This record gives sequence, C-alpha cells and structure tokens, in this order.
Amino acid sequence: MKQTLLKNGYIISMNANREVFVHGDVLIEGNTIKAVGHVTKDSIHADADVVDVTGKMVMPGLINTHVHLSQQLGRGIADDVDLLTWLRKRIWPYESSMTEEEAYISALACSIELIKSGVTTLAEAGGHHVDALGKAVKEVGLRAILSRSTMDMGEGLPLNWQETTNEALKKQETLIEKWHHTSDERIKMWFGLRTIFNCSDDLIRQTKQLADQYGVGIHMHAAEIMDEIRYTKEQRGASTIEHLHKLGLLDENLLTAHMVWLTDREMDLVMLHNVKVSHNPGAAMKVLGFARIPEMLEKGIDVSIGTDGAPANNRMDMMDEMYVTSLLHKGRTLDTTTVPAEQVLEMATVKAAKCLLWDREIGSLEQGKRADLIIINPKQIGSFPMHDPIANIVYSMHASNVESSMCNGQWLMKDRNILTVNENEIIETAQQLAEGVVKRAGIHLKERFLHVR
Amino acid sequence: MKQTLLKNGYIISMNANREVFVHGDVLIEGNTIKAVGHVTKDSIHADADVVDVTGKMVMPGLINTHVHLSQQLGRGIADDVDLLTWLRKRIWPYESSMTEEEAYISALACSIELIKSGVTTLAEAGGHHVDALGKAVKEVGLRAILSRSTMDMGEGLPLNWQETTNEALKKQETLIEKWHHTSDERIKMWFGLRTIFNCSDDLIRQTKQLADQYGVGIHMHAAEIMDEIRYTKEQRGASTIEHLHKLGLLDENLLTAHMVWLTDREMDLVMLHNVKVSHNPGAAMKVLGFARIPEMLEKGIDVSIGTDGAPANNRMDMMDEMYVTSLLHKGRTLDTTTVPAEQVLEMATVKAAKCLLWDREIGSLEQGKRADLIIINPKQIGSFPMHDPIANIVYSMHASNVESSMCNGQWLMKDRNILTVNENEIIETAQQLAEGVVKRAGIHLKERFLHVR
Repeated sequence: MKQTLLKNGYIISMNANREVFVHGDVLIEGNTIKAVGHVTKDSIHADADVVDVTGKMVMPGLINTHVHLSQQLGRGIADDVDLLTWLRKRIWPYESSMTEEEAYISALACSIELIKSGVTTLAEAGGHHVDALGKAVKEVGLRAILSRSTMDMGEGLPLNWQETTNEALKKQETLIEKWHHTSDERIKMWFGLRTIFNCSDDLIRQTKQLADQYGVGIHMHAAEIMDEIRYTKEQRGASTIEHLHKLGLLDENLLTAHMVWLTDREMDLVMLHNVKVSHNPGAAMKVLGFARIPEMLEKGIDVSIGTDGAPANNRMDMMDEMYVTSLLHKGRTLDTTTVPAEQVLEMATVKAAKCLLWDREIGSLEQGKRADLIIINPKQIGSFPMHDPIANIVYSMHASNVESSMCNGQWLMKDRNILTVNENEIIETAQQLAEGVVKRAGIHLKERFLHVR
Repeated sequence: MKQTLLKNGYIISMNANREVFVHGDVLIEGNTIKAVGHVTKDSIHADADVVDVTGKMVMPGLINTHVHLSQQLGRGIADDVDLLTWLRKRIWPYESSMTEEEAYISALACSIELIKSGVTTLAEAGGHHVDALGKAVKEVGLRAILSRSTMDMGEGLPLNWQETTNEALKKQETLIEKWHHTSDERIKMWFGLRTIFNCSDDLIRQTKQLADQYGVGIHMHAAEIMDEIRYTKEQRGASTIEHLHKLGLLDENLLTAHMVWLTDREMDLVMLHNVKVSHNPGAAMKVLGFARIPEMLEKGIDVSIGTDGAPANNRMDMMDEMYVTSLLHKGRTLDTTTVPAEQVLEMATVKAAKCLLWDREIGSLEQGKRADLIIINPKQIGSFPMHDPIANIVYSMHASNVESSMCNGQWLMKDRNILTVNENEIIETAQQLAEGVVKRAGIHLKERFLHVR
C-alpha cells in the first residue's frame, strides 16, 4: 500500500501523554498512521511519497461536532433579526424551499470552507436531503456523521416537513441502512432530534430505543434559548435536560448542541450520564447566549466545539471557533487563565472524537489510527513571532495558516488548493442557486444603507 | 497630479447619507479623493491609472484607535496567565528590555498585519522608542497618531522607565515638535497617559493643559479592570472616570481605551463631555471583561474599535475585531439585533475618525477627503454566497478578503502584496529579535505539552 512520510515537522500528537515531537515524522500507509515521532528508515518503502514539513506543524485534523451543511447557501439571510424572525421567517422558509441539488451544492460549499479551516471530520446537526449531504461529503473526502432533521410536531412547521412519528423514524432507519459504515468507514449515520419544541416524547423515547439497537448516536439541539426552557417546563413539566432525563435519553450516545441554559443539577445529570456536549461559541454569541463551559469542563464533561450553521455564526471556521472558545469564557468569568489553549486543542481533537464515539479511530496522531491530519504553516505576519506554539495556534492563527489537509489517508487540500472538487465552480454555482432559494422562499432583505443605482 | 480611477465597484462611501454606489467609481488625484459615485469622463485625465474593481467592494480604510506597535514582538509571551503576571512579569520586562531597533521592527511587523486586515489609520496606545515607531509608520505608509507611554509614578516600574512629571511632559513636547503634522500630514503626535495607576494628578492636569495648548488629543487607558477602580477610589478618592472628571480631563480631545468598568453616572459624564472611546473586544474578552458598548452607543457616545497590543488580543486584525464587536454584545445582552453590522462599520470608519479628531480628512469616501481606502474581494468560499453585502463584511469576511489598500493616495498593498516594505524579511527579523528581547527580559514560558526532542 502507498506510503506517505511527513518529515521533520513539529508533530502535535494529542496522544495520551500529549507528546509533541519537536523534529518528528509521521508515516502513513493507506488510510492508516503507521508511526509517529522518530520513524526508522527500515519501515519506509522506497517509493514512499516524502513531504518535507520542516518549520511546519502537523496535528490531528479538527473535528467540528455541530454543523448544518444544508444551511450554507443561507449565510447572511438572518443577520441582526430577532429569534422568531430568524427561525420562522428566514431559516425554515429557506430550508424547506431547497431542492436536493441545492442541498448538495450547499454541503459542498460548506465542506470546502471547513477543510480550509482545518476540519477533517464533521457531525451534521440534522439536515434535509440527507442523500445529497452524504453524496457531497463522500466526494469532498471528509469524515462525517450524518443526521436527518427530525420533527414530528410543533407550531409553524412548513407543510412539506410535516410527518408522523413513525414516518420520521422509518426514514432514518432507511438512511442508516444506506449510509452507516460507508465510504471505507468514513461516513456514519446517526439519529437526529431537532429540538424539544419539535419532538414528541414518543419520538424521543423510540429514537433512544432504536439508536441503542443500531449502535449509533443521537444528535440533538438542547437548552438553546430561555424560551425553550419555559416551553418545556410549561408543556412537558420540567426543563429540557430534566425532561430528557425522565424520558431516558441521557446517555453516552447522546450528543447535545449548545446547552446554554442548564441548572447545576442538569449539569450534574449530563456528567453522570456521560452525555456529550458541542459548544458553538460563535452562534452562542450571535443568537443564543453564553454556555457555562469552564464549569462543564471542571466537572469532566466531554465538551467539543462546533461552528453551527452559516446563518447563525456566520463563519464556518474552526480556527476562529477555537479562538473565540477561549476568549469568550475568559471574559465571562473574568478569569484570564480559564480554558487555556491546550484545553481548546483537546476540545477540537481528542475530546471531539470522544463526543462522536469515534475516539478509537481518530482525534490523535497515533499508530493504528486513521490518517486524518493537517499541516500548519506558522510563517505568516499574523502568527509571528512565535514564542508559545500551542497557544499561537489558538490565539493568533487563522484558517489561512492551514496549508494542507489529509483525511483517511487522502489529501483533501495541498497548499490551500482543494484537490477533491472544483472550488471556483462551486462558489459560482452556490451564489446562483442561493439567490434562487431565497427568492423561492419569499425572503426579502432590507438594504442597510442607501443604495444608489 | 497623478490620477487613479477605481472603476465599477460596489462603493461604500460612509458619507453623511451612507450612500452605496452599486456600480460606482472613485477618482483619486494625488492624496485626495476628487469624485465618488458616477465619475464623468471629462474629469478623468488621459494618463489616469484605471483599476477595474468590478465585483469588488471599495470602502474607507479601517481605523484602529488603540494599538501598541511596540508590543508586536511580544505576542504570545503572556497567554493564559493572571493579570499581575501578565503586566509585571511579562509585559513590563519585555517592553523595558527593548532597543530602538527592536521597537522599529515590532512596529513594522504590526503595521503589516494591520494593513493586511484593512487598516489605513492607527492610534498608537502609548509606546516606547516613539522615534522608532514613527520611522516605521512613515516608511510603511500608514496614517497614524503616535503617543508615548507616559508614567511618573507607580509600583514595580522598571528602573529605566522612572522619570519625573516634568521629564515626562518635556519628552512629549519634544516629540510633538518632531512628529506632529509630518509626512504630508499623515503623522500626528498626541499626549499619552498610560493608566491611572501610573499617572499622578499633577501629570494628568498638566497634560490636559499642554494638550489644549498644542491643539492635540490625549490617549489614555481607563477603567480597564476592577482593581483599578478599587485603587483609584482608595488612593484618589473616586472611581477612575469620576476622578478624571474632577481633574478636568474629560473633554472632546480625550480618547479613552477599554472603559470596561463604568457606573451609569460615569457613562453620562463621558457623554456630556464628548469623551471618545476605543472598544477593544478581543482584549476585553481575553483579559479585561465586557464593556457596556450598546449602552454607550445608545447614549450617543462616539465609540470606535481597537485591537490593543499583540500580547493582549492576540490578533492584530480589524476584520476579526469588527466580527467580535457585534457578536460579543449580542450574546452579553441576549439581544440578537443589537450592534448591527452597519453600526460596526460606522465604528470602524466615520466614528473612529471622529474619535481621532480627524473626521474632516478621513473616515469616509467623499470629495476632498484624503484617499484612504481598501478594496475588498468578496469572492471566497468563506464569504459566499452573498445576500446582505454590508453584513457579510462584518460577519463572514476575514482579513484575507482585503485585497488592496491605499493610504493618502499611495498604494500600500495590491493583491495581498505589501508594496512599501519587505514583508518576508521583516517576518524573519521579527522572529530573531523577538527571541532576543524575551531572553534579555528573563521571560521563561512553560511548555504546554510534553515536548520530545
């Protein structure tokens, strides 16, 4: 099998000892890491592809644990509006108006932006046209956990989204049969639960049962806004996490996104049941509120980082999310030492892999794991001088420092050029299709300044 | 005089009517804007340099109202440490160990990073080796207000920084004679006051008197941390802004940076006296706390945006600061509509020009103003599709979207290449010198992970 040797880089392994090999190598064979650190000559084939990474950093590819691939074409349709407008007059009309082809291009565009900021694995937050999302991810070469936007109730739902509990579950079972463990194990399929507003108790209970049966996870938005907590208390008798606990949903195969509004007791429930958390600081700041992340980390909860969707953030950029993750909580707690850089890197790699129940295969550079990695070039005016390399990645670097990317042994990007799909073509098509969706959805944006034509 | 015509762009003028010329032109002659909008053929000379900006945006250069040029080489020397360590064991030893040459290279490196994120004007927060900073700014071509780090008292000050009130004032008068209104009016010199901890009442009073006499402004750090408020109350009898009010400092020629800890009454004093504010959201999050910016804007206070210095932020990137300015306050107030994109653009252009008492010459693209502008290329995967162009700049774009930059009619950057100085050479030199300063200052950073050599 074809070998690639990354030679003489600053190798951030993120292994159990968190070893950094200051002048280290990574040997890759097929889709697998064969050796990390000092690679002996006799293990390298004569025809190995040798890449000199002197002066560069090599680290595990970043893992984005919450992103809406199908929302990419809607970036900028809901800025500076109140939340009800955001959801019901912008996001729902947009998402429910999309065709399969539009979802496919949206997913491709989103995937490229993610790759360019160092992402090699993503967890889809629950999209529509899952086949289109899967097709895009397969072609672009990312590792992904797909999930379907699943709702069986709730006010104001677009007509074409209304379905029974049974239909919602059946459709997901079909998708699991089709997508789970495909593309050389790069793609998995989980169950989705959109929000407590839109998921009946029956759907939640049956979802848990089926997820356990299939041995897959469940991806759900939870404790996002204060209105949700109020609603759940009034309509279901307890706040969101307490209620999900009663339904038996809290478990190690549940990945919850946002988790902004938790009581101390709910935080303990999350910890006790080993529930996974995706923190989305950009979206938290722009639309939701600040989750108590240092407190969760202190309790030992597995917290990872996600970008959320383009209309909520609006940067699908994990380098920025890492930066903001640390800064937001320093400012919020007035503790300049909290959520330090090394913890942020863990959240975006090893911890994230755990959140996706994928830590045996990815999240660190170790012998036997899949070859998911990025090469970082620190030599830019924005990241020089470098006194504290690990901190520099989190606090100073940008997506533009991510030079190359490999997933499952395949190069996705080299020297900022995407290798698997045609980026320029996709940008053109994305703009064209996006205008169509917005028009069809009846979304009209007010011009912010006086436009003279 | 040489003319340049920017032809057929999306021209964001930021003029009083906030006109955007959807297919507009900008005509520049020498250092001055001759026409904006639809430029008639008879006003264009035959030998004008015509730049096609079809599909691109042209807007006023961004104005960074608080940056420490001499701290650039210290980026990453003080991440994740408590504030006392930050100041006394890292920043002061670093800054007081610098040579003139190191300050010069630091200022060049910082200036390049700023230009690459769209900045054409900066206000130095109060540096050392002001001649070196002035030399750098002059060469790199930016517009700048210099100021000197001025302290005449306080605990723990490095020996070589100790000086009398009179010395502190005299040195600044000499610098004003030397630098104010130089480089074709590109460079001005103001008075500086480092912080209330380090400035005696006498220094503050005399500074105000001299600033009025010279017709210049005063740049001061104020209400940064809670300890400062406590100190000022105990030692001077009132909280910082109240105390500065008693000393007669509050006036329209005072630019205050940070302003995190203000009472409502203090905010009213700021408003009544037309004091200018520089909000530094990155530094606010990383080390200080969240200023009440929407409340200040609501009162009509002139609030602008600054990056602060590299060890406090650590990104000297105004595109990121604009993004964070809006997001931080949305999350803090739980109001998704607060500090909207158009307001952020105002803070970084017209409002900032007002904060620097320079609004007659810069801050907008208008006939007769200086030619300070940037060309933005929106066609990147991270800023496509574009539904809401003004919001897209603030929420989605990065420094990498800023393609070209002109200050005072001179091109500083074209197609991301810095034209006035040698960027690569400066990166190399910066790293080398930075290591020397840190060593000389006796700063030792702990390695964050286990480094294997």
